[in-house]
Amino acid sequence: MELIYQDHGSLKTPGRETKMTELNFKKGGGLLPVIVQDYSSREVLMLAYINEEAWEQTIATGKAHFWSRSRKKLWLKGESSKHYQIIKEILLDCDEDTVIYLVEQQGGAACHKGYRSCFFRRLQAADFEIKDEPVFDPAEVYKK
Amino acid sequence: MELIYQDHGSLKTPGRETKMTELNFKKGGGLLPVIVQDYSSREVLMLAYINEEAWEQTIATGKAHFWSRSRKKLWLKGESSKHYQIIKEILLDCDEDTVIYLVEQQGGAACHKGYRSCFFRRLQAADFEIKDEPVFDPAEVYKK
Repeated sequence: MELIYQDHGSLKTPGRETKMTELNFKKGGGLLPVIVQDYSSREVLMLAYINEEAWEQTIATGKAHFWSRSRKKLWLKGESSKHYQIIKEILLDCDEDTVIYLVEQQGGAACHKGYRSCFFRRLQAADFEIKDEPVFDPAEVYKK
Repeated sequence: MELIYQDHGSLKTPGRETKMTELNFKKGGGLLPVIVQDYSSREVLMLAYINEEAWEQTIATGKAHFWSRSRKKLWLKGESSKHYQIIKEILLDCDEDTVIYLVEQQGGAACHKGYRSCFFRRLQAADFEIKDEPVFDPAEVYKK
């Protein structure tokens, strides 16, 4: 299958609007990160990795495939849960080493922990940090 | 600085809502991917990598720092252009090996090629693929 990446929103000047582009699998040692984003809400659902086979399977089937780094095998997302990710659009970055899958997430959740998104945690400061040094010891001063 | 990741939107049952979590830098051989997303529009602007130093500098300064794989050094995003990425929120994934920086992108563009997002290309099929084999050669049959 022959593929073309087209500049998104650029002026369509002849010889510029289409150019053949390849993913640079060498850069990631054969594995490139994929950001999976909900097609409607634009929420980031997960990040996973592709090798060339996973990329080709994704294009061929229209369902998100990855390379499982832990299981060291091709991974059709949803193969157990049947919660497939249906590809709506694919975006490529300037360095040709990262892609975005814009998907329809079947079953409503991407995370194996049951959340809609794998990014279900937000960073918060533990509490107020003390920025000053005490001038006196209250236990000493206010002893009763 | 002590940090806590809090479950996002989960039920706040005692002993569950807060737990100390560390990024697992071992998983990526010392480097973890960061998805940078616009805080308002939720557009994905870029993907870059952090080591522990870049992570600590991000937290300490509130500006996105990365590890430049090409220059092999700490990289304050915007150090040349002054288009800093101001951290609004940070999200963590289920495996503790990917984070999202939700940022205010100063200067309006994240990509070094001048685009708002590094993902300025969309995948499109080149054209109609020929699925059949010709039965006859028109040049032969219709020779005049």
